[in-house]
Amino acid sequence: MSRQSNRTTDSKKMNSELFTLTYGALVTQLCKDYENDEEVNKQLDKMGYNIGVRLIEDFLARSSVGRCQDFRETADVIAKVAFKMYLGITPSVTNWSPAGDEFSLILESNPLVDFVELPDNHSTLVYSNLLCGVLRGALEMVQMAVDVKFAQDSLRGDNVTEIRMKFIKRIEENLPAGDE
Amino acid sequence: MSRQSNRTTDSKKMNSELFTLTYGALVTQLCKDYENDEEVNKQLDKMGYNIGVRLIEDFLARSSVGRCQDFRETADVIAKVAFKMYLGITPSVTNWSPAGDEFSLILESNPLVDFVELPDNHSTLVYSNLLCGVLRGALEMVQMAVDVKFAQDSLRGDNVTEIRMKFIKRIEENLPAGDE
Repeated sequence: MSRQSNRTTDSKKMNSELFTLTYGALVTQLCKDYENDEEVNKQLDKMGYNIGVRLIEDFLARSSVGRCQDFRETADVIAKVAFKMYLGITPSVTNWSPAGDEFSLILESNPLVDFVELPDNHSTLVYSNLLCGVLRGALEMVQMAVDVKFAQDSLRGDNVTEIRMKFIKRIEENLPAGDE
Repeated sequence: MSRQSNRTTDSKKMNSELFTLTYGALVTQLCKDYENDEEVNKQLDKMGYNIGVRLIEDFLARSSVGRCQDFRETADVIAKVAFKMYLGITPSVTNWSPAGDEFSLILESNPLVDFVELPDNHSTLVYSNLLCGVLRGALEMVQMAVDVKFAQDSLRGDNVTEIRMKFIKRIEENLPAGDE
């Protein structure tokens, strides 16, 4: 599905539950389509990536956020502006690596899992893995290659949900980018 | 994925764009999985139904709406409370049948299609058909059997999007209901 050219930046604020349940339908469908959790995780990441490379444009238009000076500023913008805007939550930024190239987003609650319990036969499913792809795709469009993965997941019994982000490199500008 | 028993009614307000793009990923996946648009439309309706039978509980808890006296009141609650809550829009209620058993919801804009253009080879795809299923499923849980379908769709060149709803019958209470 391609993007319309006449989009404006008016937005609709909605409660998260319909999104949550629709996301559940997507994950359930992928669990039917792919043989194992590993494949579903990969597919969610890939879908998220494709969403991220589109969402970033909307984000930049809507937030008026300029170029970040460093990875710490990027972390703050992701947590306080982007998560707030698109998921209605504000994760805390913590667990910085000494070199300042890695941090964690701690989600006290995760709207994606609101109605969810993992069935026993999907113990290796990273249910919310779409989010990692979204972050990876969006940051790639602003010339940052990052590695994103879940380090803890409340769905699997952890107390919080932790997304670990690692800066890999700055990407040369003017490279073509697109769907994976 | 089953529902957790410890859900509260706190809610997250979010912008619609991440939902819109995630819904697009779902429809795209179904278009890969099923042979033709007809099957995809059916699947979207079925997924929506399963979402609706869950969402209604959240809706009743959150809205404090009581039992509707008639179909006109139901129409108003759907348009002014439910659509506003879960999609951030308020469709107008119009085109009542003389018998008062049919009406239309007119959506000036449809957040589900914000980034979307239908490819030529999907001319019979009812892209937003999930919504029909959601309405059907939710109303079934409050003992109303309804027929719901798109009568117009801005995605297919119509000026507005029109969802047509027809009351079929009141369902006897205490029947077991569940996933289709």
